[in-house]
Amino acid sequence: MRIAVFAGDGIGPEVTSEAVRVLQALDLPGLELVEGDVGGAAYRKHGHPLPAETLDIARSAEAVLFGAVGDFDLDHLERHLRPEQAVLGLRKELGLFANLRPARVFKGLEDLTSLRPEVAQTIDLLIVRELNGDVYFGEKGMRTLEDGRRQGWDMMSYAEDEVRRIAHAGFKAAMTRGKKLCSVDKANVLETSQLWRDVMIEVAAEYPEVELSHMYVDNAAMQLVKNPGAFDVVVTGNLFGDILSDQASMCVGSIGLLASASLAEGTFGLYEPIHGSAPDIAGKGIANPMATILSAAMMLRHSFGMEAEAVRIEDAVAATLAAGIKGGDLGGSAGTKEIGDAVLARL
Amino acid sequence: MRIAVFAGDGIGPEVTSEAVRVLQALDLPGLELVEGDVGGAAYRKHGHPLPAETLDIARSAEAVLFGAVGDFDLDHLERHLRPEQAVLGLRKELGLFANLRPARVFKGLEDLTSLRPEVAQTIDLLIVRELNGDVYFGEKGMRTLEDGRRQGWDMMSYAEDEVRRIAHAGFKAAMTRGKKLCSVDKANVLETSQLWRDVMIEVAAEYPEVELSHMYVDNAAMQLVKNPGAFDVVVTGNLFGDILSDQASMCVGSIGLLASASLAEGTFGLYEPIHGSAPDIAGKGIANPMATILSAAMMLRHSFGMEAEAVRIEDAVAATLAAGIKGGDLGGSAGTKEIGDAVLARL
Ligand SMILES: CC(C)[C@H](C(=O)O)[C@@H](O)C(=O)O
Ligand SMILES: CC(C)[C@H](C(=O)O)[C@@H](O)C(=O)O
Repeated sequence: MRIAVFAGDGIGPEVTSEAVRVLQALDLPGLELVEGDVGGAAYRKHGHPLPAETLDIARSAEAVLFGAVGDFDLDHLERHLRPEQAVLGLRKELGLFANLRPARVFKGLEDLTSLRPEVAQTIDLLIVRELNGDVYFGEKGMRTLEDGRRQGWDMMSYAEDEVRRIAHAGFKAAMTRGKKLCSVDKANVLETSQLWRDVMIEVAAEYPEVELSHMYVDNAAMQLVKNPGAFDVVVTGNLFGDILSDQASMCVGSIGLLASASLAEGTFGLYEPIHGSAPDIAGKGIANPMATILSAAMMLRHSFGMEAEAVRIEDAVAATLAAGIKGGDLGGSAGTKEIGDAVLARL
Repeated sequence: MRIAVFAGDGIGPEVTSEAVRVLQALDLPGLELVEGDVGGAAYRKHGHPLPAETLDIARSAEAVLFGAVGDFDLDHLERHLRPEQAVLGLRKELGLFANLRPARVFKGLEDLTSLRPEVAQTIDLLIVRELNGDVYFGEKGMRTLEDGRRQGWDMMSYAEDEVRRIAHAGFKAAMTRGKKLCSVDKANVLETSQLWRDVMIEVAAEYPEVELSHMYVDNAAMQLVKNPGAFDVVVTGNLFGDILSDQASMCVGSIGLLASASLAEGTFGLYEPIHGSAPDIAGKGIANPMATILSAAMMLRHSFGMEAEAVRIEDAVAATLAAGIKGGDLGGSAGTKEIGDAVLARL
């Protein structure tokens, strides 16, 4: 059971080490943890945000536990050297094509969202975002047109097999939940979306129990505000998924609690909190490690099939919250270690 | 003073005719109204959602008052014949490159949004969306790759002059408001966005009083939920603007009150409510015409420089609301004509 641990920048190391403590406390058979450098931390040490050694470590492991990357001091670098590029590189190199972002409001934390409590408490959705294609990984460049004007350009595209595999991920997720899948696209404008929609409809035939619907992305952004409780599973492309999954997280409010999984074909996956590196509070011991701890739970579930252990972690986090032990982000005052200790005590 | 009136589909004709009554009541010098067919209505009559005659009428006018287009019964048509294509065609053919979407919560209507009243009441922002470029109007298509896979593709791009003119629109708007301009892009991934950002920074030099900031689109979608009151003017591209402006509208709640302007270089503009054709309530006389009436006010302001008359309309609408006369969408029971009459009585 070999897990790569990429702590990254800012609060990444602090929150990751609490999640590691939780994993170690579970007495997992043959657990082996291997650390690797990513992001700004890796750039400072190796001159690249995603060094070859790090990729090798990931490839030698069965799953990656990821902290956060991002470092304002490196924003002046060329884009391919900036910390966030480690995220894109890992997704592409490891074939992490399916990003699962569950969003639900935790009982007792309805106060943390900007939404009315009666709307917020209806939220229980899962966004399945494609991570390997779209305008993210197409050809792109800066050019000077014949008439001398500068132009920036990016190719957006999806091929049918790319859509098919994320469609299956979406339908499978829907089968384990409320059996409703909403595919979000912009088929009234984009050919990429038209292909997306066509393939979704094809794949739907294999999941007769799941109710498939289609929604334009602008409408989805509205419905996530107006009636987020109506969504069960949302499946969408890389760019729209980037926007909608962040919007949905903020609807939940407590982003210090939200975990995510980025899965490859098979059981390999990368697990990370959805929050960023929060450089402003880094090193102060006040970051909330719960989202990273819950990411470790997702890892046990998706990459190792250890449902019981995943639930044990999730229950311990819930019990910690129920006991009123909360980080500053949730209106409490517990520090990083204190929260880790509290979760460990409740395992 | 020649105004083209394109009522369109669904509730379009009902709401537009109330706005026309308001314009007629103002005794505007030389007012001339010319009707034209668009959308599904035009397709049924002429076989095209944007017939050449309609474009000619628009070109012969100084402004267009637009209702709504959209007709589920025509969704099976090839994309270029669907009603919504009239919108894209008008934007392109008439050079309507700047879409202005003000969003603010009307006093007494805080209950209509899903946001907490204390968050909602802080909303007073303007989204300036580029309408003539981006992935909307690039080359696009469906192709079969060498290995036989189908692929949908769309070219995203911006050239510097396209960004420059919308930048000026954004900075000018900021000068008339709180002097804060937030440019939204995805420069950590897209070259199109990098060019966008570079040009925004260049143009900023001409508006030293305006404070320019940059935000990634995923973060913008979060901040619109978390702290929408922090935004003054937001300037962004066609695709991101489509998503964020609809999200912002829903944050306001009362979309039956939201107007928009799509401006060309000079004074020509197209004005329309942000709501759609609402086929479910079409023809019942219950649609709220206020957003269209307020669009007519925006027209007087932006295309004809008639600030006083614009304010007269806006005050009449506010007084109508204050008198408790509201459409069903705002929790009231007033019908389309009744609301029109009430606004006319308060002019
Ligand atoms: C850092 C950035 C490239 C990344 C993305 O856009 O995918 C991030 O926003 C995310 O959602 O993980
Ligand atoms: C109808 C559609 C093509 C259009 C757009 O995407 O621009 C609409 O959503 C809008 O925002 O006016």
